[in-house]
Amino acid sequence: MLRIITQRTYAVAEIARICERTHDDQVVQKESMVRDVLQTVRHEGDQALLNYTAQFDGLSLNVDSLRVSGSDLDAAYQQVNKDLLDAIRLARQKIEAFHRERTPKSWVQFAEDEVVLGKRYTPVDRAGLYIPGGRAAYPSTVLMNAIPAKVAGVPRIIICTPPGLAQGIAPAVLVAAQEAGVTEIYRVGGAQAIAAMAYGTETIPKVDVITGPGNIYVTLAKKLVYGTVGIDSLAGPSEVLIIADSLANPAHLAADLLAQAEHDPMAAAILITTDEILAKQVAMEVDRQLAEHPRRTLTEKAIAHYGLAIVVESLEIAAELSNQFAPEHLELEVAQPWDLLPHIRHAGAIFLGNSTPEAVGDYLAGPNHTLPTSGAARYASPLGVETFMKSSSLIQYSPQALQKVASAIDLLATAEGLPSHAESVRLRVKKSH
Amino acid sequence: MLRIITQRTYAVAEIARICERTHDDQVVQKESMVRDVLQTVRHEGDQALLNYTAQFDGLSLNVDSLRVSGSDLDAAYQQVNKDLLDAIRLARQKIEAFHRERTPKSWVQFAEDEVVLGKRYTPVDRAGLYIPGGRAAYPSTVLMNAIPAKVAGVPRIIICTPPGLAQGIAPAVLVAAQEAGVTEIYRVGGAQAIAAMAYGTETIPKVDVITGPGNIYVTLAKKLVYGTVGIDSLAGPSEVLIIADSLANPAHLAADLLAQAEHDPMAAAILITTDEILAKQVAMEVDRQLAEHPRRTLTEKAIAHYGLAIVVESLEIAAELSNQFAPEHLELEVAQPWDLLPHIRHAGAIFLGNSTPEAVGDYLAGPNHTLPTSGAARYASPLGVETFMKSSSLIQYSPQALQKVASAIDLLATAEGLPSHAESVRLRVKKSH
Repeated sequence: MLRIITQRTYAVAEIARICERTHDDQVVQKESMVRDVLQTVRHEGDQALLNYTAQFDGLSLNVDSLRVSGSDLDAAYQQVNKDLLDAIRLARQKIEAFHRERTPKSWVQFAEDEVVLGKRYTPVDRAGLYIPGGRAAYPSTVLMNAIPAKVAGVPRIIICTPPGLAQGIAPAVLVAAQEAGVTEIYRVGGAQAIAAMAYGTETIPKVDVITGPGNIYVTLAKKLVYGTVGIDSLAGPSEVLIIADSLANPAHLAADLLAQAEHDPMAAAILITTDEILAKQVAMEVDRQLAEHPRRTLTEKAIAHYGLAIVVESLEIAAELSNQFAPEHLELEVAQPWDLLPHIRHAGAIFLGNSTPEAVGDYLAGPNHTLPTSGAARYASPLGVETFMKSSSLIQYSPQALQKVASAIDLLATAEGLPSHAESVRLRVKKSH
Repeated sequence: MLRIITQRTYAVAEIARICERTHDDQVVQKESMVRDVLQTVRHEGDQALLNYTAQFDGLSLNVDSLRVSGSDLDAAYQQVNKDLLDAIRLARQKIEAFHRERTPKSWVQFAEDEVVLGKRYTPVDRAGLYIPGGRAAYPSTVLMNAIPAKVAGVPRIIICTPPGLAQGIAPAVLVAAQEAGVTEIYRVGGAQAIAAMAYGTETIPKVDVITGPGNIYVTLAKKLVYGTVGIDSLAGPSEVLIIADSLANPAHLAADLLAQAEHDPMAAAILITTDEILAKQVAMEVDRQLAEHPRRTLTEKAIAHYGLAIVVESLEIAAELSNQFAPEHLELEVAQPWDLLPHIRHAGAIFLGNSTPEAVGDYLAGPNHTLPTSGAARYASPLGVETFMKSSSLIQYSPQALQKVASAIDLLATAEGLPSHAESVRLRVKKSH
């Protein structure tokens, strides 16, 4: 049952509670276990990976079966039907087009006195993508991580994904990887996969950047290895916030809320509307659509704990509450979404109007579906090509340009108590006389 | 004494050792202490800040003196001489001009079927800058952190800096802050300052992003609060790598190496040259310039532990060794720096040619001096305007555009076992018939 709240202060408190649902102090306990896994993999390499895979995944692999073979990769194409393959290809093409559009470009600027300043963008040498297994197989996650890395020009891209049980890794995942141009895939999941990519083992190369979502152990491992390697973000459970006016369709809104809730019992689904009748209709529709939902138990749990409909007096107030939550996904199911947009300050992705359910962006609109969660949209951005690139500043001064700034540098360096900084300029200026 | 290495495998090992100098397992012990500080500040607020300031800084403050007053801010201008003020203003102007040049711009793209896709950039609501005190006062650090935040359009910017002892906070720091447009300055340093900015106290507001360098406690605190707030990077001790050919001037190179070493006993200063005679001349010059260096003990220690001259056969080999180190600062002290540039893959800032000592970039060339250290240039970029902004993806589909992709989304959602994802599209398409 979707709860309906009409009282503002209660709504504010509930939004804060839901936003904080993952900032849990219990995490500290899991952290020491994850730290052990990291240290063990760091020192024992492949053997540790095999041990953890036996222990956590209940699967006995050997060193040779850590990497998915060429024949396994070929075989996956036989197990994916033609329509699904076409859908993966359509998604790949649209995602790639969008990401190409926003690839950072190097630039230089020629200023007076022959000064040259600039920014040069280069890809990382190696990227490691973590693709979760578990409850479901996610070919879309493969595309959303691999395509930006490819567009960035990363020479070596690897994937780690849990080995699966009897069926092995889902064929759709293996096909999506190949369609995105990645063929180096390892059967390893959890914190041990993150450790392998951060430190390297005999079989798995050390990478420079690790991206991709995962459970709490994966996320903790990413936080601990951050600094040794780069990471995309610390992903929490998924969330949607929908702002709707009285013209929105209750059945659509209910489906959109459930599309979030069905991910995870910790997922959050919040509706904010100016229409109390609509809120009640949506609540009824949620119950109706839940009745025959194949993932009913899990989805119901998410709705019960982190589902909410809030009734407010105006769309501006709705926007302010949304800014407080800083949602991963924000749907503006209103007649004039572009008029409301300037009131929105924080959101990972914004879906405008009644024909743009979040699912369009989850799969194939083009923008990345790896987005900041748990309020991180206050400061973080979607995954992108730039996640797999870095910039270097370029600075070239001429003798006459250095001459002009020499005394200013001398004063600043002296004020900071750094004599050799001053000397490095003084010596050069002396010579240029 | 600057050691000279001519043997390649030894050089590779030494570079790896120096690069790893901060990835220390001992850090784990300090971490639990830092975790305590964070929890205490989180729960006890201002009072904890006052207690830690008494304990760590030996200074007894009260709640009212946590914030630097308006009259203290005014007074700072009286204590900074006119020439230094002019130098600060020159630096401010050049840094601001460069950062304005690379401010991310929002964009939209209008595609067929009335699809609109885009990226919208917005500033964070609040930024917290950490400015170290300790050995010296750093007005340049203030400018390099505050100016990008200002250019990003952050509405509220605060600074935390250690309170100093008898003299208080350095006047040059207070003046630089005001010149950059920041007047909300708090007397608090160390991990407790990071905690205050991450969680908020009665006096200090919770911020969205924390930037700025600090000692190991500050850095550990930043790593621990990452996820609750955004951070710029985990800064380690500073480092320079210089590639020089036989035309370079030994005195200049020695000054540049010392300009790095004088920061910190952990600072690294590496010369790679094709000319063994030059290497010996530089080593002699280092000794000569060290003889009367005001920070001799500290600087000598850095040179002894993390200073090095490596002789190689070609500039290409020099570039490859440099890529292995991924230096924070890279000087190309060669006749044709632009020819060597394509061989460089990883560096925070690159200084081209003999008239561009690192000090130019440290103070006023324009690009930021907050750069990735300890090998992080393999994956990370300089601090910039984008550190204080984030993007939201924009997606708008029309009924006809949704119709065209509906079956592909249905297939993908079904393959991923997410029925409500499929339903959210199916319901809308049905209606549009």
